[in-house]
Amino acid sequence: MKHILVLGAGRSSSALINYLAHYCQTHGHRLTVGDAQRALAQERVTAPTQAIAFDINDPASEAVLREATIVLSLLPAFLHPIVARLCLKHRIHLLTASYVSDEIKTMHEEAARHGLLFLNECGLDPGLDHMSAMQLIQGIQQKGGTITSFESFTGGLIAPATDPDNPWRYKFTWNPRNVVLAGQGTAKFLQHGQFKYVPYQQLFQRTAPVTIPGYGNFEGYANRDSLKYQTVYGLTDVDTLLRGTLRNEGYCAAWNVLVQLGCCDDTYMIESAQAMTHADFLKSFLAGDGPIEKMLCDQLSLAPEGEELKRLRWSGFLSAERIGLSEGTPARITEHILQKRWHLKPADKDLVVMWHRLRYRTGQTQHTLNAYLTAEGENADRTAMAKTVGLPLAIATRLLLENKLEARGVVIPVTAEYYRPILHELQSLGVALRETES
Amino acid sequence: MKHILVLGAGRSSSALINYLAHYCQTHGHRLTVGDAQRALAQERVTAPTQAIAFDINDPASEAVLREATIVLSLLPAFLHPIVARLCLKHRIHLLTASYVSDEIKTMHEEAARHGLLFLNECGLDPGLDHMSAMQLIQGIQQKGGTITSFESFTGGLIAPATDPDNPWRYKFTWNPRNVVLAGQGTAKFLQHGQFKYVPYQQLFQRTAPVTIPGYGNFEGYANRDSLKYQTVYGLTDVDTLLRGTLRNEGYCAAWNVLVQLGCCDDTYMIESAQAMTHADFLKSFLAGDGPIEKMLCDQLSLAPEGEELKRLRWSGFLSAERIGLSEGTPARITEHILQKRWHLKPADKDLVVMWHRLRYRTGQTQHTLNAYLTAEGENADRTAMAKTVGLPLAIATRLLLENKLEARGVVIPVTAEYYRPILHELQSLGVALRETES
Repeated sequence: MKHILVLGAGRSSSALINYLAHYCQTHGHRLTVGDAQRALAQERVTAPTQAIAFDINDPASEAVLREATIVLSLLPAFLHPIVARLCLKHRIHLLTASYVSDEIKTMHEEAARHGLLFLNECGLDPGLDHMSAMQLIQGIQQKGGTITSFESFTGGLIAPATDPDNPWRYKFTWNPRNVVLAGQGTAKFLQHGQFKYVPYQQLFQRTAPVTIPGYGNFEGYANRDSLKYQTVYGLTDVDTLLRGTLRNEGYCAAWNVLVQLGCCDDTYMIESAQAMTHADFLKSFLAGDGPIEKMLCDQLSLAPEGEELKRLRWSGFLSAERIGLSEGTPARITEHILQKRWHLKPADKDLVVMWHRLRYRTGQTQHTLNAYLTAEGENADRTAMAKTVGLPLAIATRLLLENKLEARGVVIPVTAEYYRPILHELQSLGVALRETES
Repeated sequence: MKHILVLGAGRSSSALINYLAHYCQTHGHRLTVGDAQRALAQERVTAPTQAIAFDINDPASEAVLREATIVLSLLPAFLHPIVARLCLKHRIHLLTASYVSDEIKTMHEEAARHGLLFLNECGLDPGLDHMSAMQLIQGIQQKGGTITSFESFTGGLIAPATDPDNPWRYKFTWNPRNVVLAGQGTAKFLQHGQFKYVPYQQLFQRTAPVTIPGYGNFEGYANRDSLKYQTVYGLTDVDTLLRGTLRNEGYCAAWNVLVQLGCCDDTYMIESAQAMTHADFLKSFLAGDGPIEKMLCDQLSLAPEGEELKRLRWSGFLSAERIGLSEGTPARITEHILQKRWHLKPADKDLVVMWHRLRYRTGQTQHTLNAYLTAEGENADRTAMAKTVGLPLAIATRLLLENKLEARGVVIPVTAEYYRPILHELQSLGVALRETES
């Protein structure tokens, strides 16, 4: 009997826990779910799965952790090095959906030496994006094609039926703080053989159009460093390499208003936040004084009846409502205001969209391969986000328990031992990559 | 006989060294000038002033330093804590023109206990701005006025006669790197009773007009934190408090192009910089490909014959010239390109401009007091910048030697014991504050 320990019972854990609970029960393994709030873990499980209180900063957590064979961590990424060091010490496999950090990277040799798998980036983005990209890339390469361009965008949005009056077509389906801070720093990618750099102040103005059959038009903005995966993906011959994030049309132009004003800055505290209304908050970023809509239109050259102002108005940014925080950075206050309208209601369904476009040649012939994947949630608990983040991790855990994974050390799922079985099983669970070629 | 040690013989040291050399010679003190490049120190001095090689990171520097009675540090500000710790250890007074850092601030009590003066912010900006402001503020308060608004801008520019074809009306007269990085972060000030926050991406679009008699129209952008001096200046009743930097008209709009593109980012390295031309560098921040002027105009809504493009063209940013650096961050490359046109030629004269506007009331009467100070350099060596940064420090050194300064510990020159004698002596040296009241 193996013992699987899941750390974190938050937003993205439901599908993962359900899958593993069923698998462990039918295969004689033990499953424990730990969360800082034990009640949250308890809500997610039924016997024989055990719910426990778990705080990685509490020395007692080590005793719990050392009993596990495999740890799946859904904790915030900055805690993963602590978990990983304990896993190294007690010889436990570790699986996460987070980006490999520099600190985790240094543990590769030691983990490999002890025969441990430290699998990271095995969720949605990163995760399913790697696996679906690699299936397409290696498929083209195996038939002798040379890939010249790779573009890939993923987004967590809301389903068409949800909240039809919401002009953003967006709600928080993962960490709200990360949504507010998204894009800070400079995006770097390769386009037609030229390195391109897009600073934060340009990012939401330089979007690419993407069409998904059945779901219409979207827009994508570039991720921080698209070049990071060039070697990993084996894309040495491309002259275009761009990875990014998908949003519904119009989102980026409206979000750009908040970016330009400085509303997403997390480096200083706003003075007297407790006395402010939503409109006061915006006004503190605008020159002079007056009616807020006029100030916004004047300073940022917006149309009074335009789409940007419509979205800001819908989110309550122009209202005389109190913020309701005693203090906060601009980013924290922006998150708090958005949370009022962007929290998922119980019956809301979210939508995950992933899109790839690969250009390649075989002999003298140029080809374009488009591929996309969509998933809709069932409600605010059983979200498409939880399913697409959690199931790849859960399936990888099954593969590990069944001795079907060979690589050891710090690994990301870019090889066939991952993408074949995981994409295959996801397809049977209704999450399928669809391809069209021209 | 006292021993004065000047550290750093760079750009801003000439006037300070000349003043102190003359004073020490006529008053029987000893003066030593140390620089990492001994030859640079040697160029600045004649016997009996001694020039030495001095590297604060070399353990041997301690032996040199401990012989001094007073150290004047013109080293880069990040080195000041090292100098200050040695001064504490060996009981030496320390004078700098740099902002008080958090680390220096912690040394206040120990320095005071040992009867040491650690004077900072005693140059131009910070320095003369404090002294001239405090003279005006305390003058108004002493005649019973209540100050309601304080605005102050300072700039280091070039004199009208210099480089008449230079549309920026600007060259590097102090640390070029600081000019390129200026304004990063968020500016914070008080305007008509409201706290205002201006992020970097808005800073060079939100300028204030300033007119200096005899020199025409300028524009000012806000400094990082104007509120820092509210208590220090005794401006508790103001509803407007704004400190900033002056540039000639049109500078900020053109500089804003570089800011919007991301050319001043110092956080990552540009790929293949050694193969790039100036125009390639700009293109790496622009979408797509094509003639660079058209790309710039399209992306940033610039007029092809407008003032922004004229300035970028003059600086060579659109040219096919090689950058000539093997590697660099965007900020480093921008500095390098600008340096080609913005270095002072031997006969160039620079210009320092400072401007204050105070609004106050006496009884029911509202007043506006304008004050300004200008200084022109003689050539690229005897600059107005060196004079206005160095002379306040040099005069403070004389006052200290003559036992005319009482405060001890970490001090900035905001009291009459500084501003009265220093502004008085500067006036006799041709640097005078002129006031007009309405």
